[in-house]
Formats: sequence, structure tokens, C-alpha cells
Amino acid sequence: MDQGSGFAERITAEVVRRMELSKTAIPIGVSNRHVHMSQEHWDALFGHGSRPTKYRDTRQPGWWAANEAVDLEGPKGRIRKVRLVGPHRPKTQVELSRTDAMVLGIDPPVRGSGKVAGSCGVRLIGPRAAIDLQEGVIIAARHLHLHPREAQAMGLKDGEIVRVRCGIGGPRELVLEQVLVRVSDTFALEVHLDTDEANGAWVKSGDTCNIC
Amino acid sequence: MDQGSGFAERITAEVVRRMELSKTAIPIGVSNRHVHMSQEHWDALFGHGSRPTKYRDTRQPGWWAANEAVDLEGPKGRIRKVRLVGPHRPKTQVELSRTDAMVLGIDPPVRGSGKVAGSCGVRLIGPRAAIDLQEGVIIAARHLHLHPREAQAMGLKDGEIVRVRCGIGGPRELVLEQVLVRVSDTFALEVHLDTDEANGAWVKSGDTCNIC
Repeated sequence: MDQGSGFAERITAEVVRRMELSKTAIPIGVSNRHVHMSQEHWDALFGHGSRPTKYRDTRQPGWWAANEAVDLEGPKGRIRKVRLVGPHRPKTQVELSRTDAMVLGIDPPVRGSGKVAGSCGVRLIGPRAAIDLQEGVIIAARHLHLHPREAQAMGLKDGEIVRVRCGIGGPRELVLEQVLVRVSDTFALEVHLDTDEANGAWVKSGDTCNIC
Repeated sequence: MDQGSGFAERITAEVVRRMELSKTAIPIGVSNRHVHMSQEHWDALFGHGSRPTKYRDTRQPGWWAANEAVDLEGPKGRIRKVRLVGPHRPKTQVELSRTDAMVLGIDPPVRGSGKVAGSCGVRLIGPRAAIDLQEGVIIAARHLHLHPREAQAMGLKDGEIVRVRCGIGGPRELVLEQVLVRVSDTFALEVHLDTDEANGAWVKSGDTCNIC
């Protein structure tokens, strides 16, 4: 179909596209505070030669929550038993909610995963040692994970920004702007929110939301 | 002006009204966890004859944060030093975020202030005693406070529901649905959010939002 033939046709096509998009119920995954750790930091905190053990798989293929945890300490307070997510990554990354950050007394930026340059530091306390992490603490930017086949079916592209409606039928419905679309063949369809966003919308993991 | 004369005129009037409404920058007040206490509970927890002392005024005329605080204890945990807000009220009311509720291991409903019947209980621990509160714990429904003259200027009525856009220009802009309008001559213009909502929108007290 030639959608460039006229203004009305283009508008109609866009409206139809958005109506189609909004039909897909997208599962919500609520990320509690967690730590992705580098091999080097693992070795220092847990001992060279030891390995993290799986607690359970996450919805994202290949990633799993570990039984092991560290304490976080900032200028104002401490948060105990923050779970690791495996496998190890090239750089240690701590993902917190802003509520957590306020407990610790630190001010991490909102960032996409992996963008830790110039972010925030915190003290990591493990069973064998403590490390003063200089950067790596972020508050995760809300995002939508898609497998390429889901992205194609929905007509979405990696890097696109969408709006997502959450909490329909609940007491705290809201519309999230600035939801970043991330497409990878290691991803499964899921909107990732942190606990502040999820509690503000009165949703939990496994609830669904819609692009709007 | 007779706005009933035609469909186009009515639509135009409504669009103009909404455009006008959205012009007003409304201050945001972020409510941290706090306790409104009855005289009876105060007497039991702090001692008959004693009085709460003012820490600072709130933006709402007549209400002030007290120096005094209680600890809250639930099945899963304890939150220390939850500040009282004075003056006393007929019924004790504890306002928490859902994040707080999860720390305590309790499941309070989202409610308007004062609607505590059948809500949630918690243990209140004061310097002189502890009380097992049977009901009174709520998560405050997001709301907009207005003085009658502000309500009249903006064309809003007590009990109306509006949508509010928060966090424009920040990393977590969102639109809150179901914001309850509350008009009273004891109120000052302010949208009240809890810490989960505020952190999810990346806003703090004194930032502004707009009806949309």
C-alpha cells in the first residue's frame, strides 16, 4: 500500500499503527536493587576461585539472580543484602531506586544499562573485603526489551522512544513518557521499571502495560 | 456567553478551558511517611500531659511537622523515627509509601486522607509504650489541594478528577491519572505525591507540575 499518497492516508496509517501497538499486553518486570559485578570485583569481595550460584532465572534469557549479595554503604546509611545478578560483566554496575539512593545519601543519575562513565560511587561490602566503587551506581532508565521478531511484529525499532500506560483499573494509573525501546536477540518482551515507578503506578512483576 | 448554542462552541470552550488550566504551574509537595495521631494514642505513647512540639510548618495552613516520632513495626521489619504531624486528629492515621509497606510486610490500601475504616494495622512504638493499631495505615491517594479562590479561578470543583503532568524536562516525565481535586479554605495550591510517585517522576517538593 502506498502510504505516501496523501495526508489523510498517512494520518490513518499512523492511527492504525498506534491502535495495533496498544493492543499488545506487555509484561512488566520490576527490578529491585541489584548488582552486576566484574570478575575482578567478585574475586576481591568473595575470594578468587569461588563462583556465584544461581538463585533463579530472570525473564531475560541468560541472566539469573544469584544467591550471593553485598551490602552497600553510603554517607547516610547502609542497605544490606543487595543481590547479585549473573553472569559477571566487564564493569560492575549497581542499579538502585532513588528511594534507595536517598537512604544511602548518594545521587546517582538515571542511565541506560552499561552507561556508567561518570556515574556515582558507593562502598561495596562483601564477605572477604570491601571496595570503594568510584563509578557504576545508576538508576535504570525505564525501557522496553524486545526480541527482533517482536520488534518487527510491532513495528518498533531499537532506540525509539514510546509512551506506556500502566496500572489500568488500579488506584494509581499513569502514563510513562520516555520509555526507551531496546531490541536484541537476547531480550524477551518486557517493560522494565524500578520499584519507585512500579509502586507509584501500583503494579508488580507480571502485570501488563500497553504502549499508548 | 451561551456555550450551549452549538457543538463547535462547546468543544472550543472546553479546549480553551484545558489550555488555561494547563498554564498554572502547581507546586508539588512530596509527603514522606508520617503519622497523624489521636490525643488518646499520644497520651499512651508519649505520656498524658505532654505535648508535641513544632519542628516546622507545612505548606498546608495549620499543619506542622513535629519533632516527635514513633517507630513502626510490621511482620517483616521496622521503620524508625517516623515523624508526627500536628495537631492531633480524631483518629490516628499513618501515611506510608508502598516501598515502606513492603519493608514492614503490610498491605495498606490507597485511600483519601481520613478514610481509614477497614484499612491496615501496624505496631506503633513510642517512648512510653507500644500500641497495636488495628486500622489507620493508608497509602495516600494522589490529590490536588486548592483554596476555593484558586478552584474558582481554575474552574475546578471539589471531588473532580484531573490528570497531571510531572517531571517535564527531567529523565522520568510521566502523566498521573486519577488525581483527586480537594477544595477547602484550609488548603493551599499543591499537588501531593508520595515518595514512590515523586521518585518515579524524578521530582521533589517545590518542583511544579501542570494539569493536562
